[in-house]
This record gives sequence, structure tokens and C-alpha cells, in this order.
Amino acid sequence: MKKLQENRLHEKMKAKSKKLNPSRIIPLSNNRLARSVVTLGYDVKALDSAAKLKEDLPELKIRLGGKAAGLAVMAKLRVPVPPAFNLSTALCQIYLMRQNLPEVVLKNSKLALEGMQRALGKKFGSADQPLLVSVRSGAPISMPGMMDTILNLGLTTDITRALAKKNPEQARFWWDCYRRLITMFADVVLGLDRHRFDSALDNQKKSESVKDDSQLSAQSLEGLCLENLDSIRSSGKDFPQDPWQQLVLSIEAVFRSWNTERAVHYRQLNGIPEDWGTSVTVQAMVFGNRNELSGTGVVFTRDPSVGTKKIYGEYLMNAQGEDVVAGTRTPHPIEHLNKQLPKTYKELTVVLNKLETHFNDVQDVEFTIENKKLFILQTRSAKRTAVAAIENAVQFVKEKRLKEADAMSRISYEQIDQILHPSLKPTDEVPMGRGLPASPGAASGRIALDPEQAVQYARAGEAVILVRRETSPEDIMGMAASNGILTATGGMTSHAAVVGRGMGKACVVGCNELQISEADRSIRLGGFSLKEGDTITINGGAGTVYRGVLPTQALSWTPAAQKFFGWADKFSRLKVLANADTPDQARLSRELGATGIGLCRTEHMFFESERLREFRKMILAHVEADRRRVVEKLAGHQVFDFARILEAMKSLSVCIRLLDPPLHEFLPSEHDEDELVEIASSLSISMNQLKERMQALQEVNPMLGHRGCRLGITHPDVYEMQVKAMALAMKENFEKGIKTKLKIMIPLVSDAKELNYLLKRLQKSFESCLDVVDSAHRKDILKHTKWGTMIELPRACVTAGEIGKDVDFISFGTNDLTQTTFGLSRDDSAKFLGLYKELKIIQIDPFESLDVAGVGALIQMAVARAKAVNPDIEIGVCGEHGGDPSSIEFFNAESFDTISCSPFRVPIARLAAARAQLIQLNSKSKKSKTKKAGRR
Amino acid sequence: MKKLQENRLHEKMKAKSKKLNPSRIIPLSNNRLARSVVTLGYDVKALDSAAKLKEDLPELKIRLGGKAAGLAVMAKLRVPVPPAFNLSTALCQIYLMRQNLPEVVLKNSKLALEGMQRALGKKFGSADQPLLVSVRSGAPISMPGMMDTILNLGLTTDITRALAKKNPEQARFWWDCYRRLITMFADVVLGLDRHRFDSALDNQKKSESVKDDSQLSAQSLEGLCLENLDSIRSSGKDFPQDPWQQLVLSIEAVFRSWNTERAVHYRQLNGIPEDWGTSVTVQAMVFGNRNELSGTGVVFTRDPSVGTKKIYGEYLMNAQGEDVVAGTRTPHPIEHLNKQLPKTYKELTVVLNKLETHFNDVQDVEFTIENKKLFILQTRSAKRTAVAAIENAVQFVKEKRLKEADAMSRISYEQIDQILHPSLKPTDEVPMGRGLPASPGAASGRIALDPEQAVQYARAGEAVILVRRETSPEDIMGMAASNGILTATGGMTSHAAVVGRGMGKACVVGCNELQISEADRSIRLGGFSLKEGDTITINGGAGTVYRGVLPTQALSWTPAAQKFFGWADKFSRLKVLANADTPDQARLSRELGATGIGLCRTEHMFFESERLREFRKMILAHVEADRRRVVEKLAGHQVFDFARILEAMKSLSVCIRLLDPPLHEFLPSEHDEDELVEIASSLSISMNQLKERMQALQEVNPMLGHRGCRLGITHPDVYEMQVKAMALAMKENFEKGIKTKLKIMIPLVSDAKELNYLLKRLQKSFESCLDVVDSAHRKDILKHTKWGTMIELPRACVTAGEIGKDVDFISFGTNDLTQTTFGLSRDDSAKFLGLYKELKIIQIDPFESLDVAGVGALIQMAVARAKAVNPDIEIGVCGEHGGDPSSIEFFNAESFDTISCSPFRVPIARLAAARAQLIQLNSKSKKSKTKKAGRR
Repeated sequence: MKKLQENRLHEKMKAKSKKLNPSRIIPLSNNRLARSVVTLGYDVKALDSAAKLKEDLPELKIRLGGKAAGLAVMAKLRVPVPPAFNLSTALCQIYLMRQNLPEVVLKNSKLALEGMQRALGKKFGSADQPLLVSVRSGAPISMPGMMDTILNLGLTTDITRALAKKNPEQARFWWDCYRRLITMFADVVLGLDRHRFDSALDNQKKSESVKDDSQLSAQSLEGLCLENLDSIRSSGKDFPQDPWQQLVLSIEAVFRSWNTERAVHYRQLNGIPEDWGTSVTVQAMVFGNRNELSGTGVVFTRDPSVGTKKIYGEYLMNAQGEDVVAGTRTPHPIEHLNKQLPKTYKELTVVLNKLETHFNDVQDVEFTIENKKLFILQTRSAKRTAVAAIENAVQFVKEKRLKEADAMSRISYEQIDQILHPSLKPTDEVPMGRGLPASPGAASGRIALDPEQAVQYARAGEAVILVRRETSPEDIMGMAASNGILTATGGMTSHAAVVGRGMGKACVVGCNELQISEADRSIRLGGFSLKEGDTITINGGAGTVYRGVLPTQALSWTPAAQKFFGWADKFSRLKVLANADTPDQARLSRELGATGIGLCRTEHMFFESERLREFRKMILAHVEADRRRVVEKLAGHQVFDFARILEAMKSLSVCIRLLDPPLHEFLPSEHDEDELVEIASSLSISMNQLKERMQALQEVNPMLGHRGCRLGITHPDVYEMQVKAMALAMKENFEKGIKTKLKIMIPLVSDAKELNYLLKRLQKSFESCLDVVDSAHRKDILKHTKWGTMIELPRACVTAGEIGKDVDFISFGTNDLTQTTFGLSRDDSAKFLGLYKELKIIQIDPFESLDVAGVGALIQMAVARAKAVNPDIEIGVCGEHGGDPSSIEFFNAESFDTISCSPFRVPIARLAAARAQLIQLNSKSKKSKTKKAGRR
Repeated sequence: MKKLQENRLHEKMKAKSKKLNPSRIIPLSNNRLARSVVTLGYDVKALDSAAKLKEDLPELKIRLGGKAAGLAVMAKLRVPVPPAFNLSTALCQIYLMRQNLPEVVLKNSKLALEGMQRALGKKFGSADQPLLVSVRSGAPISMPGMMDTILNLGLTTDITRALAKKNPEQARFWWDCYRRLITMFADVVLGLDRHRFDSALDNQKKSESVKDDSQLSAQSLEGLCLENLDSIRSSGKDFPQDPWQQLVLSIEAVFRSWNTERAVHYRQLNGIPEDWGTSVTVQAMVFGNRNELSGTGVVFTRDPSVGTKKIYGEYLMNAQGEDVVAGTRTPHPIEHLNKQLPKTYKELTVVLNKLETHFNDVQDVEFTIENKKLFILQTRSAKRTAVAAIENAVQFVKEKRLKEADAMSRISYEQIDQILHPSLKPTDEVPMGRGLPASPGAASGRIALDPEQAVQYARAGEAVILVRRETSPEDIMGMAASNGILTATGGMTSHAAVVGRGMGKACVVGCNELQISEADRSIRLGGFSLKEGDTITINGGAGTVYRGVLPTQALSWTPAAQKFFGWADKFSRLKVLANADTPDQARLSRELGATGIGLCRTEHMFFESERLREFRKMILAHVEADRRRVVEKLAGHQVFDFARILEAMKSLSVCIRLLDPPLHEFLPSEHDEDELVEIASSLSISMNQLKERMQALQEVNPMLGHRGCRLGITHPDVYEMQVKAMALAMKENFEKGIKTKLKIMIPLVSDAKELNYLLKRLQKSFESCLDVVDSAHRKDILKHTKWGTMIELPRACVTAGEIGKDVDFISFGTNDLTQTTFGLSRDDSAKFLGLYKELKIIQIDPFESLDVAGVGALIQMAVARAKAVNPDIEIGVCGEHGGDPSSIEFFNAESFDTISCSPFRVPIARLAAARAQLIQLNSKSKKSKTKKAGRR
């Protein structure tokens, strides 16, 4: 989802970029060339400065690059930033074509540099109040680490020597600055292999038998500098001793770095246009380690952990940023600064308030103090926990900084996942392996290699991670018993992933490197070999796998969260339902805010071992009487199950799907001789007959086989048993005074005749069970029971004008609809979908996010046709896409009534439903405004 | 197809029926009641008679029932028929409601009977010139054997006795007539079990130690009659001795027989409306066995075997119809009658000519002569061989009785199949089993239970029938070596069926009762047990299986057939292409009239054993170099194959599809240790590695898996090799001066990006091979090469507006499109499609005839969208439906350019294409007429 948001910004910026400058390759006019040098944080009469810029932030990013845009905004706000000037992105193409910088640009850069000297009272290329600068790249969209940076420009051998001499206690500092400059310059500007400089440093440390750079003396560092300069000369290159020349060469090198191989590759992968270019920012260097009145720190405008409204952060005096990070010295809490430098502290709090107010969001701010003077280096929206994010959103609404509607965009979907699942505490532990993050949450436990072992550990009260090549319906009991699931194969919608999410279990799938040896009950991953029973930890939100037990933190459903989701529900038009198969899941769904059950899969009720045994007998019976006997027995279980689930949802509706999977999914293993013997004997058939029957049930393409309503037609007694059980379950609740609401759903319909045949037959069965019921109740039960079908085949979409006539509702099964529309089995597609993504043939896995152009077009057609014949028909979705925000946007736009997803996706779906409706209202009001404008 | 035509008539009649009488249950007015008795073949002043009826044939059938309608037409033509009167179908509901016949009907029936007496000079209920009548049912649509008939009405004990006395030589005849009347009456009218009467007859024969009825004396028969009458009385029922009463009761009983259980069931199965009702026809009986001036016979207006224009038939004097059929006496050729009864013969030829002219088709006529007087009992379009049918059609056109366009409907598609395949000579042999008629033609040969054995027999020069549970691509060589194929499972589009038709082999599939024992190399079917090597015969046109070798007759492609298909091509708008994979098949396709190859499947070229071995190595290679080596080797074979096929088609285009099936279809059996060892060693990998690799290639749903262009993207070297081979094959032919035409087709595309990625890459490969070619040739080759894609996924249909942009042609793969649109695997659907048909949930198997409402709607959408972006795009179909007439009608209506089918379907497709276009022109001209009429 983050990706998606980025894509949107991206699109927006692309659009702006086109508007601003249709072809960046056209040389800029002289006037525009002159305006391509902009000062940030100080003014120079002849030049544009931040204060004069009129662009909004995306426009600024396109013109100045992302980094300088941030500085420009701060400068406009009169927040103290280290003065800087920017050579705009437009110059990049010009430079790359001409291979030199236009005169006017050089002239204006010089003006800008002189202005900077005046502003700081420092001098570039001087040992007296020396001004050092950095030269940094900055593309409109962040390309982290792809392009080059040079620090400490302005030093030469003479200047460094003079500075060292003037302040002997800083000699080491200045020589080290100079050494770094030489190395970076040689690498970036002169194109020399930086390896030789690193080796020189290593050799020096070895010869002095020290481990750390900081242990090298000023003298050693001076020696290194001179050695490096010699080395450069011997390559036929030159490190200029003229600081201005250094600066110009560095600016050119940074422009050139737009076209390094890695940058080009990165842009191809991320679809960033070639002609955008990078900007170059030349910024004064400030040093928090200059003296005891200097320092550096990081501060949040509110507590990023729980969201409390109180500034929060740390700082170190006489230190650089890296000292805070390295942890060699213990930083002070930010309040302490009030004692050390009360004026500066005061200034900082004012700045923080200003930034939070301007950006209207909690900020994460880096600052440096040089000689009591405060500089803000960077501000950005604070990364915070989900709890804090929601807390802050609710605070901002209370403080009237934010409308409730706007608060909806303040929490990311990933963060909601964090709230709902136990998560790993931050850790430095290196994962032993990675797979796909199939179902969020962290879980630790013993490795179990089969479901039986998992159940055994669970019974002994041990936490379990079920580790399988892949899971199948037979593993259900083992999955239920486990705390987490790890598989070697499969994608985001593989069996393990779907069931894992449904159960709210942490789940990592497609961990390709994972090797499982059944023979010696062990696994191999990332070079480690672990036995069954050893403990591992998986992080289903990140797809990572660790050895041992790592500490986790639990679910946090705060009062602020309650309030926040209340707002979401207010904005939503879509009703959010849950996919739930048990009373426990039903209750969980309610807690998480579902307003009904959109999909209750009856097949999962047959997986409990005793019932599974009975079910198998039913499938395998040759004699009608045997079948009927078993069906009767199963009926009792179903009445019990249905009654409990309905009761758990009280007045909220429960949509129960009739048996769907092909029968062979229920068969015992061919190798389970014990069970086979038992079944054969109870059915009075030979083992051969039994095996033949099992063989006959196998299918070449089970996805396209004998399942869903096709079973209902060939095995009418099963469907009849199920609807009768539903009728009895309704009766039971009504007689207890609980007026439950039932929806009966017929799966895999491809033609109206198929549906109508079953409807007629099943409605008769259902009503036949109510003959004994009190007539008022009977009427009431019939009123509370709706009949519908699942649309999961292209043909059902095309013929929805027939199918929709005689049902109360239709629900799209988008998983299967995607499979059939694409002709793509989710079990088999992992083999090539990876490459498809790499080649950009597909952008997003259609099983994760609805394929609007293909599957979406069929859905649109189906909705239109069904509503044309039955305007009151209820339209829903109960595939995996029901929990995917961008798919939800589509369903909302297509006027769906309900979406249904796994319980732990419900809060995400609630938020997504709210956002979708807000987007739609917004686009409608824009359209109507445009219309009105058009009329004037 | 016959079914289809019947359905159409059915629909037409239904429509008429509605128009004529929207609700048949409304009691008729007295006037209409009066008109419900109609005389046929004679006039009665107060009544309607055939001559007065204005209805056309379908309307007559609705009013009078099918049988009487035929009599009415003959009567109108003044062809001598035994006089009859009809009680119309409308009376059926009236009678069934009232349980008696209205007075006016009884009165008019009496009038009609009196008229009949006058017309014949006979008297009903008299021993002097006795009139005997039959009472027969007749529904608007034939329901053979479903309702009741009573013969010989008019006899009583006294009358019979008197007749016997008057003509002692006919005593046996009259008593036998009376006996039959009593039995039928007791059964049909009185509802007694006819078993007791049959036993009485058997007992009598036993007691006289005779075997045949005809050996019983007049006396014995008289005894039997009296015994039967006693038996009826003892049941408390009565056989009326009043002939009029007999008649009325019989009429009522026949009306009642509309509602017998079997009739109701038959109507449900065949969708015949309940309220149509049966009519009752009372007809004078005529006796060809009355004397030596009487006789009976069957005659065709032209020779039904080869079509010669010359009447053709046989007759027997002093005989009944059953004597001709029984074969106890040898009948005379019809010409002989000219000598025996020249006047009657002359009259017969006049009648025959009149009937042929009126019905404008060759007639098959039953006649009886009673005392030199000719009666025509029945006329109908003559059943004839395909050769005769085509001969007749061409004759009729020459004789200006028929327009060429109308000749198109004179041959059924089944008949064309007959022409093309060797067929069984008519036989009385009882089949030992039945399956589905998957590929027409008859074939005999030794049973081979696996492809190896089939190849072995074939090498030894023996004819072979390959008998398998089902076939798979590995069986290809064995199938090619066989004369016919028989499988136990699978439907009309199973592998065996599709490949069988493609190869033009006789094929019977889905012979469910067939049991194959691999262990003792034997099969069981229909109670017989046969060993491998025993001979059987299969009739692929009928789905029958016989023991031993039965005589067959060979292909007959006569001059008349040539002319006939020439006309068909003239009327067609669609170009008919063939699916052909080898030069032999290409040549056969041309002979059968294909104007190009619409689908050449490259995968079949890899099934030859040596190549298959190489191909397997390519699939299983871990090392890139090994792969490339094998790909190079295969390239040579492909150039050879492609060059030969292109050459065989000369200037006609050849559309070659790039590799389509999933790779695992090519894998060796896991049990074939020898080959596995060979492969592993040649690839320098361990057996375990090999097996792992094979395992990794398995798929859960192969139909939705890693195949088609998905392989092209993950294994670009294979597709590149194939297009390079095509380029070299084109070059080879062009350099020989043969300007061949190539179409390259990319299968299983789901998105335009996928297609465009491959097009770009493959066009480059193709062109790279032409760098060495003379530049004029090069240009020419590029001009003669078109690029296209197969549309076989719903998503490709929906996004055809993108997919169609950059290709020269698209071809619908309707087999797979049907599978994905319905979510229905053709391999697995046999389990329930039978029941679906039985329950009328589907009417026609969508794999046999295109599902217009679903798949058709997607195709319509795709064509519209593709043409919108690319008006010149060529649209074709190459699925099985390309050879199905009703599907062809759809493709023609949707403005397709080409249809492609297996070679032996080509003539059918040519005819179907002509008919489809004629239908379309017809409906257009009707529409334009309606429009014009509207304007007036």
C-alpha cells in the first residue's frame, strides 16, 4: 500500500512535470537559466531565494529536488537552516548535453556563494573563519544512495595546515575532514577506485596497531592526506588546490551521477522518467563538535511510541550526528537542554511548534548547534508506532488542526496490521531467511513438520510453528493448533496464506531457500540446520524467519483507536463483513468491527477429525443407504455449528456458503492404511473398490472440476442436508428469542438454470423443516432468510442478467474469478509471476489487488446486468480482494453494498472503505464544481 | 445436427401453436368442435375435409398430428390413400378434462364413418363387404411407440364367424384379425394385462406343438378368441359386440394414452408441451393379402444407394407389409409390377412423380394394392446414402427443381462424414459395447493396449485399434500407428477425441463399460473377454464396438460431390482452413478443400521419439549451456518441418502456433528408469536431481498453469528458436521460388504487455535470420509474414482493445476459452455433464457447440473491441468449434474471416459456412423487406 501511495505521488508529479515543462531537453532561456540558481536560508539580491518561490511542495520537489524543497520550505518559514543554494534539476539535462555549466549559472553560483559567506561571516577557501560546504544530489523522487555526495569542500593542504596550526586541539579534526574530502573527491569527481584510499587507511591503522579511525593522530592523518594526494597525482589526475575549482568540478560530478549505471537501473525498475534529472545543493557545513557550546540531536514533536503530546528526543553536546547514533556516549533527554542552553532550547521548541503546525503532522527533526546557534538540518513526518499514529490523529482532530475526514489518511494500512497482531519488538537480530509476508504478526514456537506433531506440541501446551513445503486442507487442524505457519512454496494467496490470514495466524510463505527433510526431521535455512522441536520466530508482517524466541509486543486496541474507527464507519458507504467459519471467529469479527459475516465456509466444519472420517465415508459410499446414514449424522453437527455461529452474530447477518471444494480434497491419504481399512470395512467394500473409488474422484484440473454447485446437483442430499440444518439452526435461535439473520449462498454458478434448479429444490427442503414451527416464527424465519449466489466465473458475469433475476444477493468470489479470467492457477503461477513483475508485464499481483482492466471489467458488466433485472439486489465481494484497499476503492466506486474479508483485515477494510468513499465524494464534488464552472 | 434441425422445427411449431391457440385448455366453441372432425381422402358435406384445409404442413401437424397431416397432404394431391377421418389434437385436452367426447364430435364421427362406407362401398359392422378400421394416435411431433393403436376394429364374434363361413379359405385370416383386435382392445381400452392373452397363444401353440402363429388353424384361433373373451368377462370387463361402441371406446383410449407414464416422461425429456395433445385418426384398413390381385411394397423415387434417377423398390403380391420385411418370401423388383398389373404400375409411377414434385425431394413410399386398387400408406423423404444424397441434390439443380442455394440444405452433416471416412457396411451384428462417436469412420484391427504394442503391430503390417483407459500426449506415436482408437473415459473433446479427429482416425471414447486389465493384457466389454491381439471393429460415427472384423466401404468423393462443394464455396463468406501439423495433413487438408492452415501445433513435432528425448533434455537441463545445445539441435528439425508444411500449402497461408502445452506434458514417465538414467547422465546430474526437477514441473491445475506465452517469456530461447526456424523455412522456400505465406501465432495471451513484449523480442529474432538473405527476398518474406495471437482467455476478450492493436490477426481458441469461461475442465466435466443434460440444465455440450450466451458474448465483445482499434485485423477461430455447424453460424454472423478445423471436418465446415451465409443473407433481406413494408 505504501507502494501505491508512492505511485500516486509519482503520477501526480509526472503530471505536474509535464505541465511545467513539456520537454526538459529544450535548452532553457537565459532568464530561466539565471533563475536556476536559488538561495535557501539567505537572500542575494540578483537571485531567486526560497522566500520568493511560489510553487507548492510537489512543484518545489520537481524544480529543486526533494531535499532542497524541504530546506526551501523551512527557509520560507524562517526556520534556521544552514544556508545553501540550489542548482535546479532543469540544469541536469543541460549539463549532460553540453558537458559544461553555462556561464550565467557559474556566475550566479559565485554570487550565491558570496552571499552565503556574508550571511555566515565565514569565508570559503580561507583558514580564517573557514566556510566548508557539501555538494549533494536531489531528485524529485527519492533515489536513496543512487547518486553522489561530497562533503567538506573548501579545504586545501595549505588551509588545513593553517587551521591545524591555529587550533592544535582541532588538528586531528581538520586533517580528518581533509582526508575524507580527498577520498570522496577522488572517487566521485576523478573517477578513481576508492579502494586504494581505503587500503591506505587500513595500512596506517595496522602499522599503528589501532582499530578505530579516531585513534589515529593528527600527524598520521596528515601523512595519509599527503600520501593520497601523491597517489592521485600518480594516476595522472589532480586534486585541485583551488576551492572554487573543487566546487565546480563537484557540482558537475553530481550532475553526472544521474547517469551512473545503478541510477539508470533504479529508474527503470521504479519507472522514474529519464529526463527528470537531479538537482545539486551546495550547503554550508555546520559542526556540532566544534566546541562545548555546540551539539547535535534528534527530536520528535510528540512521543513516537505512544503519541503523548510532549516533545521527545535526545542530544549530545560537542558531538556530531554519528556520535548520537553510535551509542559510544549516552545522550541527554531533550529537556536537559533547557538547563544547558535555555535560549537555544526555547528557540528549538518554537521551531518545532512552527514545523508541526506548518506540516500539520508530528515531525521528526534533526538539529545541530554550532556555538549556541541552532540549525535545523532536516524535518519530516515522524515515523511512529501505530498506537502513536492513531493517538496523534485523534489529538489533531481535538486540537482542530485536522478534520475527521482528513484524519483517515493519517494511518497506513500496515500500521493497522501492527495494532492487531503481536509484533516483534525492534531487533538487531539478522533473519536466517526471508519469504513473503503472508499474514501479519510475530510468533515463536517449536518447529513441527507435520500437523500431527503440531497438535501434539499444542496439547502439551507448547507454542508451535508449523513448517511445511506447502499446506493443504488436510493440514487445517495442525494450522489451527499452531501459532504461526512457515512454508517453502506458494504465494500471497496460497493455501497457507489464505487460511493463515483467515485464522489470524502469523504466516510466512514462499521461503524458497527453506529445505525440509522429512527423513531426519530437520530443516535447513540460511546455512543453519534445525531439528523438529527447535524454536524459531517468524514475523509475518515482514516475511522474516529467526532462530530462537524473540520478544514480541501484543495487540493494542486503545480508546483512540475505537474513536478513530468510529469515524471511519461514519464515512463509509460499504458495509464491512468478515469471512468467519466458527463461533470464535464470528465473535472476533464483531470485536474487530465487522457488521456481519459475508462468508462462512461450511467445508471447514468437516475438517475436525471425527467428522472428516464420517464425511469421507459419505463420499466413498457405494450404497445409497450408507450415504444417507452418514449424511444424517453430519446433519446433527451442522445444526450445532450453524446455530452457534448465528447466535454469536445475534442480529447481524451470516452468509453461509454451501459445500464448495471438490470431494477429493477430503479424501484420506492413500498411504493411511489404517483409515482406509476402517472405511472399507464400515462400507463393506474391498480395499480395491475403495481405492478405485478414490482414484475416480481425482481430477486433472481441480479448480475447473466437480465442485461448488456442481456437487449440489450431483449430490443433492448433501446440499439438502445443509439447508435443512440451517433451517433448524434458525428455528433453535428464534425459539430462544434471538432473531438471527441468514443468507444462503450457492457457489460456482455458471448459468441461471443451474442456480434456479438448486434454488427451487433447496428452498423446498428449507421450508420443509419449518412445517413443525409455530406459524408466526415460520413467517419470521422466512423473512430473515435470503438466498443468493457467488459469482466467480466469467460466464456468470456475462449472464448475470439471468442469474441475478431470482436471488436476493450476489457475492463476487474474486479469487476464483481472477484465476478463471486470467486462466491462471494461483497454485502454479508463482513459477512465472515473479519474472512477469520483473519485466513489468504485470505491476501488481492480480491475486493481491483486483485487476481492474480485466476482472474489474467483468464485474462491472455483471453488476450492471444484475441491477438491470433486479434493482434491489445486494452486491458484495468475499474474495481476498475484499480486504485490499485499492480493490475496495473499486468496489466502492461500483456501488457494491458489502465487502467481506478475514477478521484481522476488517479494521483495514473499514478504513479503506472510508477513504474510498471520501475519494469518491471528493471527485464527485470536483466534477460538479467543474460543471458549475463550465456553466458560468 | 439432426437434433438441431428437429429443435428448430420444434420451435417453429411451438410458435405457431401459440399463435393458433394461446391456451388449448379453453373449451372450443361449438363451431370449432364441429370442425375438429376432418375427413381425409373423401368428402362429407357437413365436415371439413383435407381438400378444404388451408394450413401449411407444420400447421397441419399441429392440428391433425403428424401422421394425419401426411395423409391430408396426399389427399389434397388426390393421391389415393385409404380413407380416414381425424379427431384433432385440440380434442385431446377436452376429452381428458371431461372424460367423455362432446356430442357434436360423436355425431360428426358417425357422419364421417358413414361417408367412409359410402366412399369404399363397404359397411362397418357387417359381414357383407365389411369395413374394418384402425384407430391411431398422432402427436404434432413424432413420439414413436409412446401412444397406443388399435387395428381391425369392426369385427365381432358373429361377424367373424359369418366372414369365415362365407370364405372358408380366409377363415384363418379373419379369426386371426379378430384375435388381434381382442388382445389390443383388452390391453389398450380395458387396461388388462396383455400377458394373459399372449400366454394363451403360447399355450395353444405348445399344445399343438407348432412354433409359428401362422401354423395355427382357423379352428384353434377361433377357440383362442372365445377363450380370451371369457377371460375378459371373468375380469369383470366386457369386450363390446357393438362395433360403434368398440370404436368410441378405442378413440377415447387413444386420447387417454397421451397421459401414460412413458408418454409423459418422453415429453419431459424432449421438451414437448403437455397441452399439445394427440389427435386420433380412424382409417379404413386395406389388405394386400386379400387375394392374388392384392399386394404391398416399398418404393423410392430414385435409387437411395447411388442416387440414379429411376424408381427403385420391391413388392410382394398377396402379402402384408410384414411379409416384405420378414424376408420369408423373396419380393419382386418394382419394375416387375408393370407386367403383373400394368395399369396399377402406371398409376404408381404417376403418384411417385407427383409426390416427388410436391415435396421436391426423393420420396420413400409405402403402398398397398387391394384388389388392383392402389393405396399409398405413407410417403416421406427417402433415407439414402451420402453419395445418393449429393447426387440427387445435383440432379435436382440440373432439373431446375432446386436452386443451388437450396441444394445446400439437402445433405446432412452426418452424411458428409460418411463420404469422408470408410464406413461400416450395413450390418445386423450387435455391438458388444457403446461409447461416444468421437471421430467418424469405421476401423478394424488388433487390440493394442499400449502405444508401443500399437507401433509393433503396425510395423508388422497389421491393422491396430489402440485401446486405452484414456490417451495422453505420450501416446501420440501409438495413435498415429493405429487405425482406430477406443478409450474407456473422456468426452467428445478428450485428448483421444481431439487428436483422433485431427488425424482422421476412427475413434470411440468414453466407453464406460470397457474394463482394461494391464496385468493379463485383456479387456472386458459387454460380457466378452478379449486378449490383446484379438481383432475388434469400431464405428466412430456411431460410437459402437464390435468383435472381429466387419466389412467396410471406402471414401467416395464423386464428381457430383465436387460440384456440390464448389457451390458451397461460392456461397460462403468465411474462409475454411484446417488444423494440420504435418506435411501429410497439409496435403490432405488441401484435397478436402481447405484454403490454408489455421492452426499448426508445433508441439506435435516434438513427439517423435528421438526428438522427444532431446526435448526432455532441454526441459530438464540445469545448465544453460546444455539447454542451448539441445535447443540448437531441435532448431534443425523445426526448420525441416516448417519448410515442408509451408511448401505443401504453396501460396496458401500456414498459421504456426508457438509452443503451447505445459512442459510437464513432455516429461518421461517416472517409471521409465532407462530413459531417466540416460537423461540424467547426458545432463550430468544425479537421478535425485532429475526427479526433483521433474517434480518441480508438476502442476495442480495444468490448464491454468505455466504454458503458452508464459513459457515463451520464461524460456525465451525456445520461442526464439521456433521463429528463427520459421524464418529459415521461409527463406528456403523463397529461394526455391515458392512464395509461401506464414502466420506466427502467440498462444494464451492475457494482457497486451505480455504480447507486445514477445512480439518485439520475436520479431527481432525473426528478422535477424534474414540478414543474410537477398534484400528483395527479405522484403518479400517480411511482407508474407503476419503476426498474431490466440484469444483463449476471458481476460484477453475483455482487453482485446489493447491486444488487438499491434497484431495482424487474432484467432479464438474456443476450447480453452470455453473451459475458462465456464470454469469447466473438459477432462473432468464428464462426471457431471451427463446429469446436467438429463436435468436440462444444459441443452448442448459447450465443448461441442459454442455457448453463444456466455462464451459467444465474450467473443462478440472481443471482436468489437479489436476492430475498433484495428479495423483491418483478421478474425478467426481454431478451436473444435471451427468445425461445428451451429457455431459456424455464429462466427459467420460475427463477421469472422476464417474458421479452422481438423482436416476431415473441412467439407462439413465448407457446407456449414455456405449455409450460415445463406441464412444471414436471408434474414437480412427479410429485415430489409420488413423495413420497406414499414415505410409504406
